[in-house]
Amino acid sequence: MTRIAMLHPGAMGAAVGAVLVAAGHEVGWLSAGRSEATIGRARTAGLIPRTDLAGIEVIVSLVPPAAAVETASDLGDFHGLYLDANAVSPARAAEVARLVRAAGATYVDGSVIGPPPTVAGTTRLFLSGAAAPDVAEVFADGILEPIVLEGEFAASAIKMSYAAMTKIGDALVIAAAELAGADGVEDALLHEWGRSQPAFTARLTRARANAAAKGWRWGDEMRQIGMSLAGAGLPAGFGDAAAKVFDRYPRPEGEIPRGTEGLGE
Amino acid sequence: MTRIAMLHPGAMGAAVGAVLVAAGHEVGWLSAGRSEATIGRARTAGLIPRTDLAGIEVIVSLVPPAAAVETASDLGDFHGLYLDANAVSPARAAEVARLVRAAGATYVDGSVIGPPPTVAGTTRLFLSGAAAPDVAEVFADGILEPIVLEGEFAASAIKMSYAAMTKIGDALVIAAAELAGADGVEDALLHEWGRSQPAFTARLTRARANAAAKGWRWGDEMRQIGMSLAGAGLPAGFGDAAAKVFDRYPRPEGEIPRGTEGLGE
Repeated sequence: MTRIAMLHPGAMGAAVGAVLVAAGHEVGWLSAGRSEATIGRARTAGLIPRTDLAGIEVIVSLVPPAAAVETASDLGDFHGLYLDANAVSPARAAEVARLVRAAGATYVDGSVIGPPPTVAGTTRLFLSGAAAPDVAEVFADGILEPIVLEGEFAASAIKMSYAAMTKIGDALVIAAAELAGADGVEDALLHEWGRSQPAFTARLTRARANAAAKGWRWGDEMRQIGMSLAGAGLPAGFGDAAAKVFDRYPRPEGEIPRGTEGLGE
Repeated sequence: MTRIAMLHPGAMGAAVGAVLVAAGHEVGWLSAGRSEATIGRARTAGLIPRTDLAGIEVIVSLVPPAAAVETASDLGDFHGLYLDANAVSPARAAEVARLVRAAGATYVDGSVIGPPPTVAGTTRLFLSGAAAPDVAEVFADGILEPIVLEGEFAASAIKMSYAAMTKIGDALVIAAAELAGADGVEDALLHEWGRSQPAFTARLTRARANAAAKGWRWGDEMRQIGMSLAGAGLPAGFGDAAAKVFDRYPRPEGEIPRGTEGLGE
């Protein structure tokens, strides 16, 4: 049994927390000042409200990309394992690592690929860095499969390259259809796709549904991919263009505002 | 029987010319100063070398995007139909239309979607503008299917939105894999794709083959898509980023240099 704290459980954090609870761990979270939605989600997941990190051995940070650094800078004095499982570029992961180490903790790079886990086989937790096996051990008995990669920030890197195809791909097919729409040829494009590229038609339907539900909070992740591409000598424009597409989507009613709660996927 | 001139037949122009020859038309081309490769291709396609456009009723321009304007500006005095079937933005098509009309000719916007046609069913010729039905009539008996769209530059528009998904999509999957490679996680990414996104693995293989063969001449088309996106209030970055990916591919040995010959698809 390991004493774990989830910072700050949105949909993904709550699901990952529930996985850890089911594996027999004690999972707490810092509930002060958090929204009713977050409190309800944490309760359902079996997470215990806490006011501090006393006795915690492992911290899991699952927050929006823009909040990853702020979350790590609030750490105070902590000497356990700190898993940053956020969708950030290797460069931002390095910034988080620096803050975590300054607090006296051991940084582990991580990322989640797949939907919030509720059954086995859908979702992977990539881990990297010297202490990655220690975190993998904590997840060993759960439905979220831990995979340890070589390379200090490899877990952040694989998330960026994976999302480059899934989420930027969604933005691209939306932009292609809108470009056709702007010139009055969307029906003709869909008809041609139906003949020569039927996969694109299915992709557009899925992409529009994804963007309507989650596009409002994907902009930061797209900019992180842009920075990752630039860092590798590749064109950042893919990520920045996708961010512009998603930034236009409004937050659906009932969704919590962009804050530090990580909604996941 | 219509007297047609192809300007300037590369792989696509020669294939389209052969379709017109098979449909019973007389198809010429301006051979002066052209490469041996182009001359050979035109001969095989059954195109007749000419020194001028005397007696020509329909001109077909199938050239690289960067050469579309130059080709139209060389027109002299011509009063027939001028089909610009190039992969250019609606804005560049409008520039071509202005030059064509200044020469006294009737402009028809066009675009080819699919590989150079050698059998029926693979390739469409989109046409738009008031005289589009006249050009469709010329192609009526061939294996290149003419489709008339509403909207003056609709044929250029559908080409841009179609290629946004095919060619920019190719550039995106290449960039995603290279991003992973730069961080040492390409194998891990391909393994994860194999589990959760098998279509991406197949796409990467196809995209790398396409880019190795044709990437060297796709940059201009990608920039045309970028301009089309910008013109529709969408992010140009997708096209500009794809251009940067393709610009890095060298011209394969034996391919003719970037010039005014349109290689197609």
